[in-house]
Amino acid sequence: MYRTHNNGQLRAADINKEVTLSGWVQRTRDKGFMMWVDLRDRYGITQLIFDADRTSKELFEKASSLGREFVIQVTGTVIERQSKNPNLPTGDVEILVSELIILNESQTPPFTIEDETDGGEDLRMKYRYLDIRRNPVRENLIFRHKVAIAVRNYLSDKGFIEVETPYLIKSTPEGARDFVVPSRMNEGQFYALPQSPQTFKQLLMVAGMDKYFQIVKCFRDEDLRADRQPEFTQIDCEMAFVDQEDILNAFEGLTKHLLREINGIEVTDFPRMTYDDAMAKYGNDKPDIRFGMEFGELNEVTQHKDFSVFNQAELVVGIAVPGGNKFTRKEIDKLTDWVKRPQVGALGMVYVRCNEDGSYKSSVDKFYTDEDLAEWARVTGAKPGDLICVLSGNKNKVRPQLSALRMHLAEELELRNPKEFAPLWVVDFPLLEWDEETQRYYAMHHPFTSPKPGQLELLESKPGEVKANAYDLVINGNEIGGGSIRIHDKETQSKMFDYLGFTPEEAKAQFGFLMDAFQYGAPPHGGIAFGLDRLVAILGGHETIRDYIAFPKNNSGRDVMIDAPAAIDKKQLEELHLKVQITK
Amino acid sequence: MYRTHNNGQLRAADINKEVTLSGWVQRTRDKGFMMWVDLRDRYGITQLIFDADRTSKELFEKASSLGREFVIQVTGTVIERQSKNPNLPTGDVEILVSELIILNESQTPPFTIEDETDGGEDLRMKYRYLDIRRNPVRENLIFRHKVAIAVRNYLSDKGFIEVETPYLIKSTPEGARDFVVPSRMNEGQFYALPQSPQTFKQLLMVAGMDKYFQIVKCFRDEDLRADRQPEFTQIDCEMAFVDQEDILNAFEGLTKHLLREINGIEVTDFPRMTYDDAMAKYGNDKPDIRFGMEFGELNEVTQHKDFSVFNQAELVVGIAVPGGNKFTRKEIDKLTDWVKRPQVGALGMVYVRCNEDGSYKSSVDKFYTDEDLAEWARVTGAKPGDLICVLSGNKNKVRPQLSALRMHLAEELELRNPKEFAPLWVVDFPLLEWDEETQRYYAMHHPFTSPKPGQLELLESKPGEVKANAYDLVINGNEIGGGSIRIHDKETQSKMFDYLGFTPEEAKAQFGFLMDAFQYGAPPHGGIAFGLDRLVAILGGHETIRDYIAFPKNNSGRDVMIDAPAAIDKKQLEELHLKVQITK
Repeated sequence: MYRTHNNGQLRAADINKEVTLSGWVQRTRDKGFMMWVDLRDRYGITQLIFDADRTSKELFEKASSLGREFVIQVTGTVIERQSKNPNLPTGDVEILVSELIILNESQTPPFTIEDETDGGEDLRMKYRYLDIRRNPVRENLIFRHKVAIAVRNYLSDKGFIEVETPYLIKSTPEGARDFVVPSRMNEGQFYALPQSPQTFKQLLMVAGMDKYFQIVKCFRDEDLRADRQPEFTQIDCEMAFVDQEDILNAFEGLTKHLLREINGIEVTDFPRMTYDDAMAKYGNDKPDIRFGMEFGELNEVTQHKDFSVFNQAELVVGIAVPGGNKFTRKEIDKLTDWVKRPQVGALGMVYVRCNEDGSYKSSVDKFYTDEDLAEWARVTGAKPGDLICVLSGNKNKVRPQLSALRMHLAEELELRNPKEFAPLWVVDFPLLEWDEETQRYYAMHHPFTSPKPGQLELLESKPGEVKANAYDLVINGNEIGGGSIRIHDKETQSKMFDYLGFTPEEAKAQFGFLMDAFQYGAPPHGGIAFGLDRLVAILGGHETIRDYIAFPKNNSGRDVMIDAPAAIDKKQLEELHLKVQITK
Repeated sequence: MYRTHNNGQLRAADINKEVTLSGWVQRTRDKGFMMWVDLRDRYGITQLIFDADRTSKELFEKASSLGREFVIQVTGTVIERQSKNPNLPTGDVEILVSELIILNESQTPPFTIEDETDGGEDLRMKYRYLDIRRNPVRENLIFRHKVAIAVRNYLSDKGFIEVETPYLIKSTPEGARDFVVPSRMNEGQFYALPQSPQTFKQLLMVAGMDKYFQIVKCFRDEDLRADRQPEFTQIDCEMAFVDQEDILNAFEGLTKHLLREINGIEVTDFPRMTYDDAMAKYGNDKPDIRFGMEFGELNEVTQHKDFSVFNQAELVVGIAVPGGNKFTRKEIDKLTDWVKRPQVGALGMVYVRCNEDGSYKSSVDKFYTDEDLAEWARVTGAKPGDLICVLSGNKNKVRPQLSALRMHLAEELELRNPKEFAPLWVVDFPLLEWDEETQRYYAMHHPFTSPKPGQLELLESKPGEVKANAYDLVINGNEIGGGSIRIHDKETQSKMFDYLGFTPEEAKAQFGFLMDAFQYGAPPHGGIAFGLDRLVAILGGHETIRDYIAFPKNNSGRDVMIDAPAAIDKKQLEELHLKVQITK
């Protein structure tokens, strides 16, 4: 037996007990006649003491040979600690060691195993098994486990059944790029790894499972933007005989439960906002509503003067920056430069200082009077002491620009309370999304999303205006989950595939099984999927999902620890009927 | 709102309530003036009634149009049922329908949606979404969910942390064939899908996670034998600072918990048997110990006479078949033929009838006296009325042959109680396994398994005799789980790789990260993995894992419902730098 207790367990009540402990040497302090070792494991730290007076010479010398991260087993007596450490749960006691076994030695780690380490990201990823020894990283993984099990028990108690769906499925051209898996037994054919279990969960509804969920890995072979992983985890859910209201209520319940159980926070009922409102008020379909700075549309109050920039603009829109009048001219210039950066892309920024005395000073004083500017202040909600920032141009461009500025200012002015959770349902998403590059509409969510009742008729005439029974759950500006009520009849589904450019043959080859299923009594159904990585990060108070993944991949999709992907044997390739064609 | 109650919910206490129900039409009975519909969902069946006297003509006609598996929504009043059905939880009531909405029609299903269906395996798999509508199939999936959540909560309560390990890892030549995933971003390179998270769970022990588990999909590209799936689910576990005893106790606890929670069965402490004993007593490393018929080795009591077949045999071994003396000559001949089938491969069978009067009658009467045969009976434990069956030959061949005969007879004589669970630990497995084809030893478990203390020295001189710290959990003749205490020092691990034929370069390329990890303070550790599919099937009282998998693949690794695998786009292949080479 390697231990009688763990290293977070012993208290004053255990004094005089004979115990055996195992763990890692966190640090040693050697005073020549007295030596202390901090022994660490997942559960905490216990101090060991070797005293030249009370310890054999041999044992003392062995202790002196210990280095950081050595793995040891000790037996000894729990004694009262001379200088107690109130910051440590075990800080009242120490172990007077009578026996020491070195279970494994350790080379000097490439970075320090401390809460604050000197190791850079790359080094920590290469030696991730050492990185996880650090408390904050390990605690994040334990936190993830707690969230996952809370989700499972909540849903299970509500009658949801976790059903495992297959990982080796079929590639579909719609959506993101699939990872594929060559089949050895079916020559020239490939499986695909699921981007989500979408069609399977719908089939489970056709199958009468009624309420399904699954915490499941999904895969997307996309060029990796920051904080995206080629494999990610979803909480995937589906319900039958429901409308949108049922789904929102069910998963608002889950989210409140998690905030209560995991974060100890009670939140009120989640506000709901249409997609159109979110775009108009925040320029963003996942607005952070922890702070104000709602958009004020200024066309009406700006387009009667000689300022041609505004007169020609489809949209003139501004935000009131609380206390922004304190910005220096230089700081305002910096803001202007910021919105003109290529990443944001605005052509310029008009500002209005709202002075404490009720007067205004703007960058367009020669076009607008104080009375005009007072109107701007009314529309944007600016008060004396604020600064109004105004952008103008094409609606679809200027809204994201002003949204970026809003978020930038929130960051600069620290308007976002990291302890606050502000969930929000965004509803009534458009069914379709225009793609400039290919000059056609695509399904905004996916081709199984149902249009709002009666809107299918608009599909040909005004496709951009068709609204879907689709919704997102947003927390603090992050999309945590999204879903929809699905199409459940073959005719509508065929119409959608047809509209999205599938030939009947393609639709049948790809999704024939689903359309067949719709002919045998498919119930109305809908669902939602949450990104577990993101949800855990948000609940944990971080924004980087990589912090909550045990073995993440880097931005080239590589696992630098195990050095994957890698070349495979020629024999393996032959068995798979494949030949690699290097293009350069 | 589609329903106020589900179809398993209404009782006599609900009489007079106005309710809305949704579900599938299980069956209709039309008496002209009165019509009944059984409405089904996951939760049960509720009887609807349409009465020409109490129902509008229009509604009655609409009801008459309903077919099997139509999806409907009804509103009506709960009334007392005329002829109550005590077999149905809702059997005291029926719904007098006032409103009927047909949510979706249904074609006639290709097989009946009843507990006993007329659909064959192939048809049921193609329309699996209809198959799952049948109670027994759906209940199996719900049962699986219950087992999985019981496992998770038990382990979590015991301090195990579920950590998700990556699915896109690196191919290793050792063990079974990997499924591989070509990388688009890393030209000519491949990920592999994990056969198990073995190295990752070991790294998590090096990382100080202390207790890990994961319910996780694993993948093996092997030719599929009956009841094997290319993707399967494991309960994967690992613990640090443990020896074999700790692991056996921890997971005996889990197994007992499941038998208690899921099956309502208390079992005693699991017996333990060495691999050598299991082979000698049952000819099998996963013996079914629900019944006796232990092997008796007869060399000593047979090899003193003129029967050359026995005299030349490495092993002469027999079993006592309880009550087997009642077999006719014809039946015994059939048994002999059975063991001589190519699938078993014995050359012949010697039998001894143990007569009720204490005399014997054998097929080798001309070589052996009654006194000789009494000795055989003593060794095999045969009693008057039994039959002794004896096989002989090479030890490694004759044991599995007699084991097959033992299981065959258990089946014929119904010796196995399907309600009984007889768990058993088989311990002290050999470290290595001889492969006739390649004329070398392979790791029996995997190359990370540690040899028993002090046995590493035998590796060169007597490799076949080295015992490992490896164990299997067996229930009713099925291997439910297996694991080992791992090697945790670089030197031993290098020696193992070296012995298994890895060059130092290959070992470094494949497992360098693990051996590196062992240099930074790896703790002693070990673990176990359970096959969830098999475990669920055993607990559920079935032996076919396919019954407990929502969407299984067939023996060619195909999903016949979605028709996968399939050819992929030329463009996809190009992006992956691959060319298909059809060999025929």
